[in-house]
Amino acid sequence: MILETIVTTQSAEGLAHIAPMGVHVAGDEFIVMPFKPSATLDNLLATGCAVFNHTDDVRVFAGCLTGRRDWPLSPAERVACPRLSVTLTHVELELARVEDDELRPRLYCRAIHQVQHGPFQGYNRAQFAVLEAAILASRLGRLPWSKIDAELDYLKIGLEKCAGERELQAWGWLMEKIEAERPA
Amino acid sequence: MILETIVTTQSAEGLAHIAPMGVHVAGDEFIVMPFKPSATLDNLLATGCAVFNHTDDVRVFAGCLTGRRDWPLSPAERVACPRLSVTLTHVELELARVEDDELRPRLYCRAIHQVQHGPFQGYNRAQFAVLEAAILASRLGRLPWSKIDAELDYLKIGLEKCAGERELQAWGWLMEKIEAERPA
Repeated sequence: MILETIVTTQSAEGLAHIAPMGVHVAGDEFIVMPFKPSATLDNLLATGCAVFNHTDDVRVFAGCLTGRRDWPLSPAERVACPRLSVTLTHVELELARVEDDELRPRLYCRAIHQVQHGPFQGYNRAQFAVLEAAILASRLGRLPWSKIDAELDYLKIGLEKCAGERELQAWGWLMEKIEAERPA
Repeated sequence: MILETIVTTQSAEGLAHIAPMGVHVAGDEFIVMPFKPSATLDNLLATGCAVFNHTDDVRVFAGCLTGRRDWPLSPAERVACPRLSVTLTHVELELARVEDDELRPRLYCRAIHQVQHGPFQGYNRAQFAVLEAAILASRLGRLPWSKIDAELDYLKIGLEKCAGERELQAWGWLMEKIEAERPA
């Protein structure tokens, strides 16, 4: 199973990094698989810890893909990592072992602490539309534009029907980026 | 904003009803808009209360659409309604006012109590695929099959990449129903 979450880490020099990632769940282990080069990879190897921030504010996912990485952070409780100040849940993890790879190493992590900050408020189709559009926006140049446009048209249905203000703002950021990168 | 959740209600005779619904959020009110005829409508009018169950077990959504409505229930704490025994959050609501309509009345509800049972575990694209497929499965006969098949092909990408066992089982139930209703 793969979860889409916001991974926060810190460099040896104490510089925070925020990255949306798909994390593989295997039993009681979480496998982070960053593509090299990756600040999340460097930070996890340097500090041996990370935080998963399960937020329902999809602006963080869209923001990180569109140059908006300045989200409020707070210190985690048991690892030397920052966490998102605003998140429904955060999970603190320690690096258990690494399977290196030229392209995409596998970082096996174990959760050592979890804090619930707010209740899950139910599914929202617009939030998923933003997540899927963010994944498309991260693959521009690797996907045919006809496929991107067809998928965005489909995602727009759930977005326009179900979005609140946060989802509309996140969608707008992604559409700006996609249009800016569209070949003339 | 529209949330997709599981609405539990009870008839005047004490018979429980479980229904997946899209609920409109308007400020501090939740608007339930069931299409007539509707057990949720009858029950809300009879008892003046309902429970929203924000669960991340998409089998409940797929199950209710495929004749699997026998999910474990527990009594709510402050209203005369059942709730799902297994859910991340449940919200207990009272009916504030009704705008009747021949097709789709608007039931304005207010949350009076909320209980957090478990932490949000992050987004999962397969859960979204199941929700969207459930919506398609509820509209068979009203949508062209070419559109249904195209959307299912798209949803299958996120499903196959990200699903856990619950999502695969829910998807299977929906595909059985869709294939059973496909014209020869």
